Amino acid sequence: MVQPLHDVVGLGSAIVDIVALCDDDFIQKQGLDKGIMRLIDAEEATRLYSEMGPAVEVSGGTVPNSCVGIASLGGKAAFMGRTAKDQFGDVFGHDLRSIGVTFKNAPVEDGAPTGRCLILVTPDGERTMNTFLGANTELSSAELDPELIRDSTLLYLEGYAFDGPNAKQAFYDAANIARDAKTTVSLTLSDPFCVERHRQSFLDFIRSGVNLLFANHREVMALYETDDLTEACKLLRQDCPLAAVTRSEKGSWIMTPEKVIEIEAEPVERVVDTTGAGDLYAAGFLFGYARSHNLRDCGRLASIAAAEIISHIGPRPETSLAELAKAQNLL
Amino acid sequence: MVQPLHDVVGLGSAIVDIVALCDDDFIQKQGLDKGIMRLIDAEEATRLYSEMGPAVEVSGGTVPNSCVGIASLGGKAAFMGRTAKDQFGDVFGHDLRSIGVTFKNAPVEDGAPTGRCLILVTPDGERTMNTFLGANTELSSAELDPELIRDSTLLYLEGYAFDGPNAKQAFYDAANIARDAKTTVSLTLSDPFCVERHRQSFLDFIRSGVNLLFANHREVMALYETDDLTEACKLLRQDCPLAAVTRSEKGSWIMTPEKVIEIEAEPVERVVDTTGAGDLYAAGFLFGYARSHNLRDCGRLASIAAAEIISHIGPRPETSLAELAKAQNLL
Repeated sequence: MVQPLHDVVGLGSAIVDIVALCDDDFIQKQGLDKGIMRLIDAEEATRLYSEMGPAVEVSGGTVPNSCVGIASLGGKAAFMGRTAKDQFGDVFGHDLRSIGVTFKNAPVEDGAPTGRCLILVTPDGERTMNTFLGANTELSSAELDPELIRDSTLLYLEGYAFDGPNAKQAFYDAANIARDAKTTVSLTLSDPFCVERHRQSFLDFIRSGVNLLFANHREVMALYETDDLTEACKLLRQDCPLAAVTRSEKGSWIMTPEKVIEIEAEPVERVVDTTGAGDLYAAGFLFGYARSHNLRDCGRLASIAAAEIISHIGPRPETSLAELAKAQNLL
Repeated sequence: MVQPLHDVVGLGSAIVDIVALCDDDFIQKQGLDKGIMRLIDAEEATRLYSEMGPAVEVSGGTVPNSCVGIASLGGKAAFMGRTAKDQFGDVFGHDLRSIGVTFKNAPVEDGAPTGRCLILVTPDGERTMNTFLGANTELSSAELDPELIRDSTLLYLEGYAFDGPNAKQAFYDAANIARDAKTTVSLTLSDPFCVERHRQSFLDFIRSGVNLLFANHREVMALYETDDLTEACKLLRQDCPLAAVTRSEKGSWIMTPEKVIEIEAEPVERVVDTTGAGDLYAAGFLFGYARSHNLRDCGRLASIAAAEIISHIGPRPETSLAELAKAQNLL
């Protein structure tokens, strides 16, 4: 058997994060739903930005963050997505490639600018996200690289990307290429409101053959329209052969139809900014899974990566995740 | 007497910093002069960026950093400078205005993009800067707002801005407007290599009537072409009625023709990134001076502001400098 070129190839939104600290009052005055991602248009992006305090810019996006996490663990990741030929597009491409993530899609000359997300971080470390999709709106099967998908151990898709009109078709096309090549198909549900926007589409897609699902407890309950997490997880285990359900500081559950493995959250001295926690959890799990670690160790790699990311501002690691994993004898 | 509208109005380069961590090997392999600012063209900016690791973007520039520091201390600052109508221009303008700094110059539609500085931070916290001036190259008297200068207690100019072909004239024009309105004229020498590029021009400009000069020990020695700091300071005290000479962790000297006041550096737990240390020192001093604090307290405000900035990545405060100053009974 030939070794795949990449552990993971991802398809998702290309985003530059604009991160500002604020107090809870600001969230309330702006009428924002704390902890949630909402989509905004160019006009609202301009308005909200003008109200926000001084910010820092750092590359983001769910799948791109996970790709960087995989690279930081010593894995090989590739990203497929859509940026514009502008300064944020340069920044986004640089920050992926410079850590060794494969990113072949050329920035698009015309049309909407590179996507950005206005992220407001409150003193409790919670982040409230306001995303202007920009160039991501046009994400379609044109962004797919069939060879990359065939030469990867896993394909990783993000629920957020479902918001574009042609993205759903791209997901099915990518998953079909993956299945034909025996590439494992994984998906993250991204956000409870995202689940509400696409509930039936998500269920149909999962049942069409998603092998590995990432979700937090709120997203699983939204998916099955219930307030009962146990009931939601029971239904999920019927629909999906493997799922990782995260529960913030309570840790996570790794679930198969046969069993549930409980993983403790990695202790963190101070939660500074939770942006990217789920993305880096997925990074650790995907890397471990691609490298044939057992499910408990996949969960532990996930928790270590998530803990690093919430201890500082921004969704990209500031320390080598491989070193952190080695210190716990996981690599 | 009518109270001036602003404590300080500054003229300088508008820059977005692109900050990446690197090891000393990288600095050596790139043939860079550690701790120094060098000017680079668009081609070299693209080349070096492609070699650098993942980065974060944060607004910078000497005078803009000082303006933000003054605002964070509770003062009123205004900035005059040149950006382009692009995403970095948006970021730069936002980060000034959102903390309350007055910035009226509209971004320029045509020509070079907004200036950026590729900053490499080594494990010792030292920063090595590679500046693509971009739109700043065209800085001229057109950027001046005479009314702003007349309505400010101090005018603040940066040596770096001397690198543009029309900037020198803008400095003289700004200083002339200031002197007619009894606005105090202050200048920072910026960098020892900058002093070498413009030595005689700087001396001429200082002798034409700079009231307050900021420099570090290397810049003062470069200005007077001597390796003897005592000798250099003696000459400086003949040329300038008030000067603050910074000496990194050794603190600073505040010098008049009559006396020298020694100011200790504020202790810092860990030096993370020295970018902006001089800029924030100037911010604290300028604010104190504009508010008629005695020279020793001006120096202490300066040291407190500098200590905050070197304890994290980026040249803009992450904590209210006013709160830090209040905790030491300086406000």
